[in-house]
Amino acid sequence: MTDFLDQIKWTDDGLVPAIAQDHKTGEILMMAWMNRESVALTVAENRAIYYSRSRQKIWRKGESSGHIQELKSMSMDCDNDVLLLQVKQLGDIACHTGRRSCFYREYQNGEWVTTADVLKNPDEIYNHE
Amino acid sequence: MTDFLDQIKWTDDGLVPAIAQDHKTGEILMMAWMNRESVALTVAENRAIYYSRSRQKIWRKGESSGHIQELKSMSMDCDNDVLLLQVKQLGDIACHTGRRSCFYREYQNGEWVTTADVLKNPDEIYNHE
Repeated sequence: MTDFLDQIKWTDDGLVPAIAQDHKTGEILMMAWMNRESVALTVAENRAIYYSRSRQKIWRKGESSGHIQELKSMSMDCDNDVLLLQVKQLGDIACHTGRRSCFYREYQNGEWVTTADVLKNPDEIYNHE
Repeated sequence: MTDFLDQIKWTDDGLVPAIAQDHKTGEILMMAWMNRESVALTVAENRAIYYSRSRQKIWRKGESSGHIQELKSMSMDCDNDVLLLQVKQLGDIACHTGRRSCFYREYQNGEWVTTADVLKNPDEIYNHE
């Protein structure tokens, strides 16, 4: 395999965290994990392809929702153990709850308060699977 | 302890990843880890306080460099396992290499290419320790 994958410092489980950021607005959409195969696929297919820890398999973001993340650029941090993806979020929804970003709860006075609206009912998003 | 800490889904090691984002520009500055104590301290002291996995202790970001991150807001993702901090980066440098952001290498044609300049020599940053 190629060198750039060898430079990534993988966890003991062979994973690396990947942050997805909207390339235009700068909004953080989500953080998920990638394994070696998914990073290679992300570059090859020019879209974010994660590794689902719960399902233990490659997760082609948007495969059921249509909410694909087109890759605009990818960066690595100084410790070689975090990736940052600049993406174009198709459908303008990254979160499985139907919200734009997964970070929709804000800390306020000792509580997590929901601060973003559901843009589309998850039933509608995933029903056509 | 308070409820909002119980809602966070900690790793087996008792940690949670925390992304630091410039609250004005939207730039991603770094990702580090927090334990229960450091999240509580972050809120209490209104500045980013991480947990250093290598040193295995609380890491008051900026304690030696002066590059403190003032907390503007903190959000949690839909899985309760990632935090996002909006911060004001004092000194305009988050990275120990003297760069603004830790994500200074971009993937280009199979390589990681450095795309951001060192703003201040690390020797200068840490010499006054």
